[in-house]
Amino acid sequence: MSIYETIQQQAKALGPWLRETRRDFHAHAEGGWCEIRTGSLVARRLTQLGYEVFLGREVCRDASRMGLPTVQRLDAEYQRAMEQGADPEFAPRLRGGFTGVMGVLDCGDGPVVALRFDMDALGVVEAAELSHRPAAEGFRSNNEGVMHACGHDGHTAMGLAVAEVLMNLRDQLHGKIKLLFQPAEEGVRGAKSMVDRGLLDDVDYVIATHMGQRADGVSQVSFTEDGTLATTKLDVTFSGKAAHAAMVPEQGSNALLAAATAVLNLHAIPRSSQGETRINVGTLHAGTGRNVICDRAALELEVRGATTEINDYVERYARRIIQAAAEMHGCSWEITPMGSSPSLQSHPELIKRAESVCRDKLGLRVLSGVKAGASEDFAYMVNAVHEHGGQGMMFHTLSPCAGPFHGRNFDFDEGDMVTGVIAFCGIVADLLQ
Amino acid sequence: MSIYETIQQQAKALGPWLRETRRDFHAHAEGGWCEIRTGSLVARRLTQLGYEVFLGREVCRDASRMGLPTVQRLDAEYQRAMEQGADPEFAPRLRGGFTGVMGVLDCGDGPVVALRFDMDALGVVEAAELSHRPAAEGFRSNNEGVMHACGHDGHTAMGLAVAEVLMNLRDQLHGKIKLLFQPAEEGVRGAKSMVDRGLLDDVDYVIATHMGQRADGVSQVSFTEDGTLATTKLDVTFSGKAAHAAMVPEQGSNALLAAATAVLNLHAIPRSSQGETRINVGTLHAGTGRNVICDRAALELEVRGATTEINDYVERYARRIIQAAAEMHGCSWEITPMGSSPSLQSHPELIKRAESVCRDKLGLRVLSGVKAGASEDFAYMVNAVHEHGGQGMMFHTLSPCAGPFHGRNFDFDEGDMVTGVIAFCGIVADLLQ
Amino acid sequence: MSIYETIQQQAKALGPWLRETRRDFHAHAEGGWCEIRTGSLVARRLTQLGYEVFLGREVCRDASRMGLPTVQRLDAEYQRAMEQGADPEFAPRLRGGFTGVMGVLDCGDGPVVALRFDMDALGVVEAAELSHRPAAEGFRSNNEGVMHACGHDGHTAMGLAVAEVLMNLRDQLHGKIKLLFQPAEEGVRGAKSMVDRGLLDDVDYVIATHMGQRADGVSQVSFTEDGTLATTKLDVTFSGKAAHAAMVPEQGSNALLAAATAVLNLHAIPRSSQGETRINVGTLHAGTGRNVICDRAALELEVRGATTEINDYVERYARRIIQAAAEMHGCSWEITPMGSSPSLQSHPELIKRAESVCRDKLGLRVLSGVKAGASEDFAYMVNAVHEHGGQGMMFHTLSPCAGPFHGRNFDFDEGDMVTGVIAFCGIVADLLQ
Amino acid sequence: MSIYETIQQQAKALGPWLRETRRDFHAHAEGGWCEIRTGSLVARRLTQLGYEVFLGREVCRDASRMGLPTVQRLDAEYQRAMEQGADPEFAPRLRGGFTGVMGVLDCGDGPVVALRFDMDALGVVEAAELSHRPAAEGFRSNNEGVMHACGHDGHTAMGLAVAEVLMNLRDQLHGKIKLLFQPAEEGVRGAKSMVDRGLLDDVDYVIATHMGQRADGVSQVSFTEDGTLATTKLDVTFSGKAAHAAMVPEQGSNALLAAATAVLNLHAIPRSSQGETRINVGTLHAGTGRNVICDRAALELEVRGATTEINDYVERYARRIIQAAAEMHGCSWEITPMGSSPSLQSHPELIKRAESVCRDKLGLRVLSGVKAGASEDFAYMVNAVHEHGGQGMMFHTLSPCAGPFHGRNFDFDEGDMVTGVIAFCGIVADLLQ
Repeated sequence: MSIYETIQQQAKALGPWLRETRRDFHAHAEGGWCEIRTGSLVARRLTQLGYEVFLGREVCRDASRMGLPTVQRLDAEYQRAMEQGADPEFAPRLRGGFTGVMGVLDCGDGPVVALRFDMDALGVVEAAELSHRPAAEGFRSNNEGVMHACGHDGHTAMGLAVAEVLMNLRDQLHGKIKLLFQPAEEGVRGAKSMVDRGLLDDVDYVIATHMGQRADGVSQVSFTEDGTLATTKLDVTFSGKAAHAAMVPEQGSNALLAAATAVLNLHAIPRSSQGETRINVGTLHAGTGRNVICDRAALELEVRGATTEINDYVERYARRIIQAAAEMHGCSWEITPMGSSPSLQSHPELIKRAESVCRDKLGLRVLSGVKAGASEDFAYMVNAVHEHGGQGMMFHTLSPCAGPFHGRNFDFDEGDMVTGVIAFCGIVADLLQ
Repeated sequence: MSIYETIQQQAKALGPWLRETRRDFHAHAEGGWCEIRTGSLVARRLTQLGYEVFLGREVCRDASRMGLPTVQRLDAEYQRAMEQGADPEFAPRLRGGFTGVMGVLDCGDGPVVALRFDMDALGVVEAAELSHRPAAEGFRSNNEGVMHACGHDGHTAMGLAVAEVLMNLRDQLHGKIKLLFQPAEEGVRGAKSMVDRGLLDDVDYVIATHMGQRADGVSQVSFTEDGTLATTKLDVTFSGKAAHAAMVPEQGSNALLAAATAVLNLHAIPRSSQGETRINVGTLHAGTGRNVICDRAALELEVRGATTEINDYVERYARRIIQAAAEMHGCSWEITPMGSSPSLQSHPELIKRAESVCRDKLGLRVLSGVKAGASEDFAYMVNAVHEHGGQGMMFHTLSPCAGPFHGRNFDFDEGDMVTGVIAFCGIVADLLQ
Repeated sequence: MSIYETIQQQAKALGPWLRETRRDFHAHAEGGWCEIRTGSLVARRLTQLGYEVFLGREVCRDASRMGLPTVQRLDAEYQRAMEQGADPEFAPRLRGGFTGVMGVLDCGDGPVVALRFDMDALGVVEAAELSHRPAAEGFRSNNEGVMHACGHDGHTAMGLAVAEVLMNLRDQLHGKIKLLFQPAEEGVRGAKSMVDRGLLDDVDYVIATHMGQRADGVSQVSFTEDGTLATTKLDVTFSGKAAHAAMVPEQGSNALLAAATAVLNLHAIPRSSQGETRINVGTLHAGTGRNVICDRAALELEVRGATTEINDYVERYARRIIQAAAEMHGCSWEITPMGSSPSLQSHPELIKRAESVCRDKLGLRVLSGVKAGASEDFAYMVNAVHEHGGQGMMFHTLSPCAGPFHGRNFDFDEGDMVTGVIAFCGIVADLLQ
Repeated sequence: MSIYETIQQQAKALGPWLRETRRDFHAHAEGGWCEIRTGSLVARRLTQLGYEVFLGREVCRDASRMGLPTVQRLDAEYQRAMEQGADPEFAPRLRGGFTGVMGVLDCGDGPVVALRFDMDALGVVEAAELSHRPAAEGFRSNNEGVMHACGHDGHTAMGLAVAEVLMNLRDQLHGKIKLLFQPAEEGVRGAKSMVDRGLLDDVDYVIATHMGQRADGVSQVSFTEDGTLATTKLDVTFSGKAAHAAMVPEQGSNALLAAATAVLNLHAIPRSSQGETRINVGTLHAGTGRNVICDRAALELEVRGATTEINDYVERYARRIIQAAAEMHGCSWEITPMGSSPSLQSHPELIKRAESVCRDKLGLRVLSGVKAGASEDFAYMVNAVHEHGGQGMMFHTLSPCAGPFHGRNFDFDEGDMVTGVIAFCGIVADLLQ
């Protein structure tokens, strides 16, 4: 039996375990930098499997973490995680927003391959209707307002299954394997702290996958040379002056008028002929009382561009709008960067090689030319590896997803995790044989 | 010694007590329908003084209460009040948003006079700088985000002092006195429930005061035939559809674009040549995450007009804007009325009589022609009394106030509460002699 | 027969002439500084009646004229006027935007009384429906887009009738009469140039009237101590950068986005508790082509306030909005003042005297307490006279007007001009007896 | 000498004539449907060269013309053209918006090849600075506000040069040549009327070129399989109600507030993940007077999308915004389609063949993969030919252009017209040999 047949067999056997594990993560969804329970269970499992495990400050550079929650929030989340079954052996080392985990398997001489799996969930209130499978089958998020609406629960489960299969194959592999379980991918906040910690410095190949939508019924993976979008995340505050809205409206400085003007104009930033752009003001919280001129408005927004240059164009325009909207209504303003990522460009050679493995050796259905979608701070890892001559790549594990990504009804077909595990292990086997 | 001299003497003697009592209320500021501690202490004091006391459902008609907090909030506030020293004998009857209190003193045949004192605070984070006296002298609000920024702490303290003085004078008075301690004046939510409970049905005269700003150093009261503004308070929700802001922005329905469009256009509602108008969107809370198309935006707003007709014009226009803004972006919308008040017109005869008492019998400095300012749901009480042929009136107790009304630095000169007590008692003495 | 009876008799006899004259002016409506035909016919009539006539540069100070049309436009309007029957003897002296006329009647020793009549029409396309009397009866404006929609055709006709009656009464009068026929009242552009020419320097009383709306059927005049609004008229230009809207949208600077942002925010300038405010962007012209990023947007706007201070508040806020809206979209901006007027406050003594004349001596129905409405650059004349100790006043000649003022259906009852003539002459008779 | 060498020689010899002719067209720029002078001179030249010429109603289907000027405007433009040297023999047949011209050359059996040249200019005020060559060298547009800012003057000159070269080669060609001089390409208004007239029914190959920007110094052409954008042009009118802005602002319905709200929200229509979108409100004209509530606002706008489906998405959203903005301010609205075009997809086989001719036989430098840019109603012609099995294609003639396309400083290097003529004739020679 070839190594590829072994991989297929073992991955398929892990199908029920993948489903159970993913559902456990789904039911205990944790936001970025708060993956205490998830990270501690990952660390326990990797340890059980025989990996050398690094975690916490060992894998996250403090100053490179972006968009951290408040200390109060981090503490409260730690308590919550402990109550929900975080592993008491590993959890304390993850506390305070150091939730990354790395498992290393050394198989002697040969290239170094790193695989990235992201663990965090989103700030979405999960659907409770019975038409939503997690609600119907009892694994809806216990953490109200936090939901795995982007499939990272599946990514993490796949990472642990990959860990098991590769450990079983270790005698046939030559080189080193690093499994990176990354915090805070949402908001592109976490990858940079792992890169800046030096974890990618010796890596020859770095690979990640993300769930993707597929139309037809056959299990499949996809590859694309199309890049993801560069992005910057900004928190904005407008500060004005409160006053009684009926007795002395002329004495206030209305931060909400500034914010509303900014929101409309931000969304109206001209498209670029140079490539795709995006802008979104995702949240706005303003004001203290109905009859008080609003003196404070806080916005969370993001800009994106097909290239770093296009992203810069949108960001510059956005900053100009914010400043002018504040000045228009006699307000001050503050802009805090909360996350950022360059655009991600997979290496064409690695794509070609991986495609060939998937199609020819693993018998998987392979799509190409699929759009890359959104942004990914995995781009930091790919860039780091490209810089010293290595190759990086992201592929998609396609599934007939329910609901839009990031929507409250998002779900995927759990059977497709097996396909992702096969692809990961097959590509590693090819690289380390 | 005339009754007016007695009043002056007794009121002045209560100065230190007024200050202490006001500071206690200020330090334990409670929002509308949550005046558990305040109301229970008022009820205890009135009982101690010998008033017949009614409270809770006895004085608030359930279905006429507007803009109630959620049940969860009411419960939490009850616990908070008990921890802060609410009276356990009276508090349970105020629970659940029935926080009104009435003290009755029957002095035999004669007219019925009702005095109204409002007890609630505002959703404002109080200044912590030492230039703010409550902060410097240790009576800043213990309840973060709730502040007596409109002087109702002073009104309530004055009400209790008036209760004491009138009780002392009861042998010289002929008629009945009703002291109405009203919840939820802010947002014009509470008066209607006391009116609809029938408390004003037998009342011949109803009087209230409000703090007002004065420029010079002499203690004074003011009277005006100018009316307050009619007003309507609306809660608005826009509901759209979430979607990943970068991957499928075209699949969302952006509730924040609807809200921002509404905010700008609401403030741009044309002025009316018929009289003053006001519009304020005081708060806006929208969105769940930075990279999610916002699917929900909630606004608290208010409209006002010099007359009920003008207020209706602004409200109609506002409702049209809200509907159109929602439809513009494929959203649905919901408008919930949270409070309302007609305009308040004091009775010219009663003004004339009260002015004369204040100036000629009490020797107070009297201003007239001062603007009435803002809105007041005391208007419901005045209208109810006018309807059966009685007379109603509001006067202002002027003080050199620090900071704007409803601002985080608001404060007043505590010595001016004595002036208000004198005016109240003097007017009652004149009416019931 | 008393002088007041004589006035009534003569004014009534002029009824048909007033109607015919007003209709002639209405059919040949002329905009501000373009009143060549109107002014020349006024000058001819005053000359015929025996007045000493001054016109053109004799009565308009060049540098004090505000909001002049272009030279090209002035020339074209002159040609138009000549073709429509302007008087060739007087018209040349009015050419180039010097369209004021003054008739002087010296009746020996006594006070100097000036009466002001405004002559200009508005930039409104007059209604053509037969429900609009000027259309039905053949005196709709021949000058498309220019319409007497504010009654100045009636004011001018009344001025000439007053001239005739006063000339007839000259032997019974003691003092001097100045009849000022003012250009460009719309946009508050013309009065200042007559004041700065010194015409009011020797004047003891200055009086003007304006048409007003009345509800019931009796002919009447009204007086008010309520003031008109102070106002400033601004022309604004936003200049950006054109670019192909599809090929390189990111290379443009969009002046229309700046203008639209300004328009919404200007109308959203907060009301003032100090008194009435107004803001209107009346016109906006922007852009050169559908597929070109708009590089130029021109706005005509006005602000108003109950007092000069309040007007200043709105103007300052407006200027800040304009600057910020330009900067927001990388545009430059230019603000040109086109007219301004302080608020108008009639002299209470003169009002009292005039009211008494109208009611007691002329038997007219007199209303008081009516709102003054809008702005009036007659305020410059009143202020000039008040400054050297004289008295000024505006009263209203009420008529059941069709359509709103400045609307395309505006019309008034021509019979009410007689009332205005009676009031003017009666007041003058009282002042100069 | 090969036919390709002959083409190169003859085209180069026409260099000075091309320059002179282009400058004449440039100096007499004519907007869409007004190309009376241009069209008549084209017709005369084609006739002189020996082509069978069709024009006016023979080549433009009346009802398929989009976005026609008013009859008054068409008449005025006709007069203007006659004064500027339109040919009196042909001009009358072009009058009234039938400005298309076709020259036919029958060379016996073989395929039918159609070449399209567009003739119209844009509504742009041309730069007058001497840094702008047309201004410096005396061929700036005589028609103020109309400018060849997109190179159609060059296209038309090239068409006439192509006509001359192909006539010279007619003995070596086998098939039929149709030279289509199209009106009103700007605004995508004209092509459909030529297609619907049946001119493309027998055509096997249809080819057009457009000027494009090039970076380096070598003369070149480019081909791309990338499509142009589908587009729809809309005229929008908001109608409200005028009223005096100070006296009765509440009686108006403000069409400018509706328009400004629409402008901001139109530009804020969400991007699509399906492909490029564009939106531009190019012009806005609103209001009659500064102190009148604006009762009418007219907008010219366009939407675009990478495919007809994406264009439909933007158009639907735009229509919803327009309706809601009107309703928001109590206005009515009207939307008039003024032009439209599907997206243009060149035939890959024809591209391949033409690239090979240009590179291998004509020795031209050939670029590929260049973006197609903007929209083109030539798409109607390509689609018509594709539908009956033919092949269509657009290529770009690259030049180092000054200023952005559609900008007031636009200009191109006149020497590059020779390259375009060579490419056209070479491709035709290849197809008809």
